[in-house]
Amino acid sequence: MPVACMILLFTGNGYYLHMIVLFTDFGMEGPYVGQMQAVLHQQAPGMAVIKLFSDLPPFDIQAAAYLLPAYLSGFAPGTVFLCVVDPGVGSDRPAVVVRADGLWFVGPNEGLFAMLARRAENIECWQLTTPAGVSSSFHGRDVFAPVAAQLARDGAYTGKAIPVNLLDQPDWPDELFRVVYTDRFGNLVTGVRASSIDKNAILEANGHVLKPARTFSSVASIEAFWYENANGLVEIAVNQGSAAGVLGINYGDTFSLL
Amino acid sequence: MPVACMILLFTGNGYYLHMIVLFTDFGMEGPYVGQMQAVLHQQAPGMAVIKLFSDLPPFDIQAAAYLLPAYLSGFAPGTVFLCVVDPGVGSDRPAVVVRADGLWFVGPNEGLFAMLARRAENIECWQLTTPAGVSSSFHGRDVFAPVAAQLARDGAYTGKAIPVNLLDQPDWPDELFRVVYTDRFGNLVTGVRASSIDKNAILEANGHVLKPARTFSSVASIEAFWYENANGLVEIAVNQGSAAGVLGINYGDTFSLL
Amino acid sequence: MPVACMILLFTGNGYYLHMIVLFTDFGMEGPYVGQMQAVLHQQAPGMAVIKLFSDLPPFDIQAAAYLLPAYLSGFAPGTVFLCVVDPGVGSDRPAVVVRADGLWFVGPNEGLFAMLARRAENIECWQLTTPAGVSSSFHGRDVFAPVAAQLARDGAYTGKAIPVNLLDQPDWPDELFRVVYTDRFGNLVTGVRASSIDKNAILEANGHVLKPARTFSSVASIEAFWYENANGLVEIAVNQGSAAGVLGINYGDTFSLL
Repeated sequence: MPVACMILLFTGNGYYLHMIVLFTDFGMEGPYVGQMQAVLHQQAPGMAVIKLFSDLPPFDIQAAAYLLPAYLSGFAPGTVFLCVVDPGVGSDRPAVVVRADGLWFVGPNEGLFAMLARRAENIECWQLTTPAGVSSSFHGRDVFAPVAAQLARDGAYTGKAIPVNLLDQPDWPDELFRVVYTDRFGNLVTGVRASSIDKNAILEANGHVLKPARTFSSVASIEAFWYENANGLVEIAVNQGSAAGVLGINYGDTFSLL
Repeated sequence: MPVACMILLFTGNGYYLHMIVLFTDFGMEGPYVGQMQAVLHQQAPGMAVIKLFSDLPPFDIQAAAYLLPAYLSGFAPGTVFLCVVDPGVGSDRPAVVVRADGLWFVGPNEGLFAMLARRAENIECWQLTTPAGVSSSFHGRDVFAPVAAQLARDGAYTGKAIPVNLLDQPDWPDELFRVVYTDRFGNLVTGVRASSIDKNAILEANGHVLKPARTFSSVASIEAFWYENANGLVEIAVNQGSAAGVLGINYGDTFSLL
Repeated sequence: MPVACMILLFTGNGYYLHMIVLFTDFGMEGPYVGQMQAVLHQQAPGMAVIKLFSDLPPFDIQAAAYLLPAYLSGFAPGTVFLCVVDPGVGSDRPAVVVRADGLWFVGPNEGLFAMLARRAENIECWQLTTPAGVSSSFHGRDVFAPVAAQLARDGAYTGKAIPVNLLDQPDWPDELFRVVYTDRFGNLVTGVRASSIDKNAILEANGHVLKPARTFSSVASIEAFWYENANGLVEIAVNQGSAAGVLGINYGDTFSLL
């Protein structure tokens, strides 16, 4: 007996579909993302599942923490972010469900949601207990995906509320002057919000002096510059070339204001 | 109030779902394809979104232009192709909506649709104006994806019609004797339609003489040959090996008829 | 006339959506997976399509054969696995449809389903004949995807039954002491089921002695160990590091019990 069962909500702006967004360091390669998607599709049929990042820098919780808040704009209320950078999987590291400014998040709590918590206006947080009998190495599939599916289906979570300050990492700065991601083109994404620095600021990275530009086509080919990328972060780039290659800078490297 | 809202059309061959097909150089890596998919799923709920190419050669509009028409067969009328190879993003480079032989296309107009235009039987073209207030570096997400969603939903476009010859690049040949893509196996896809050359033609590439074969298993292991690939293009290949590695040829290299 | 047409089945555990799972060596790169997905979405509208593996080791049927049965748990009855590692495509190599323990499989028959057949409790097998007029190099798109869509839609197959022993490769061992996949993190997945060896077994690989551990966080950073991975296979790993790099072992290498 075929039955239609897509979950759509009506808002002032029209219909939209609840969505689950994956934000992991699992790699595009291999079975891990697919295995999570299989759980999501079986437990939340008809839900759209989007891979936002599958190639976050492996094990680098801090890099992921500074990227996450930059990629939230435009997602409809109720969107569920399944976030996994989890070098401590299988240990007794804590895990959480977070509701921040209308969006849901689920994942391990070793700093991944630190900048989200510091920047959100309205935020709640619940402890997530690992159920018995699951694998000790793949909580993305066995613990977090089922919770994400439930959040997407129900739009609510019942559990033990915990203080939001348990999400923070007090030692981390508000802006991280480090390359947190290098994209396919060799563009260097940083942990600094462009709105936090002067729009005419000059950067210094690996001995190179970098001036601001509006966008790629504003400068000559192979000229290095920094600009506010489409997600509000400071990005170091080269027009039609690789900033990583031209400047000898890569993921993990630091830079500074001149 | 959950409501089912999938868009299916009835044809003589049965039901089919409108589909949005991504054809970009954004990379499988990183957030870019996912961010476009999020816009598409929010603005065209329930629509299937397929990644045809996410790893077109970066910035190489010409390579993409010769690949595009080869990959259109089999798609149902009304399918929307969201095409982005866009080194000029943020400048005043033009953008277009194209309807060609029943399929929709949207993207920047610096040659990407040149070969499509030259080969289509029925084609119309409209100017696409960049709306104010969007990012200057990610028109795939902010300009083209919303138009693709609208085309998939509505199956129609209202705008300023422009002459189709604005799509062409008059200097470009009908067949491009250049490797336009190297796949995972090291197969070398070219910009030449197999139907344009003699089926017994001999090719010369980097000093190697290449005879035709029907398919991989027609030749001995590690023997190089050319064949008509499953999309009608001349492809240089090696049975159970990498043509790129064996022949020392790669993306961008040229070849000729002997 | 919009019509809703998602295919959901009711079971004791609730509703679920039939699903098609891709298991190929096509690569994340390039158009091949997308072209198969386009066929599936056009011929089985609304069906979820999951990429389990797109980067199986190229041409290595044996590696794929030992991976496949390890990744089946958790999939609902009726799930269709579209399996393509097919160096013999275009030749007269046989192809099959298999039903094993409630799951469907379709693909070439040169060993890919050998371990599935040896381990399944209930299994049936049908010969699949290549239709005329299809490409000689892309049966994933032209032969297997249409059959997968039909299986997902109909949940049944009509054809010529063949003996199950035609799936087997009698020379292959029950456990394969070889690295069959290296993941993004450098973890080394093997063709040995953890349940087949003593839980305290010591392994020897490339001169290294490897003790068992429960999971990554059970050992010190950069210490190599073996463990039962989340799919029941013996995996050689290093906590927060690359086993491939640390041990100098990679895909294809063999190892032994000490």
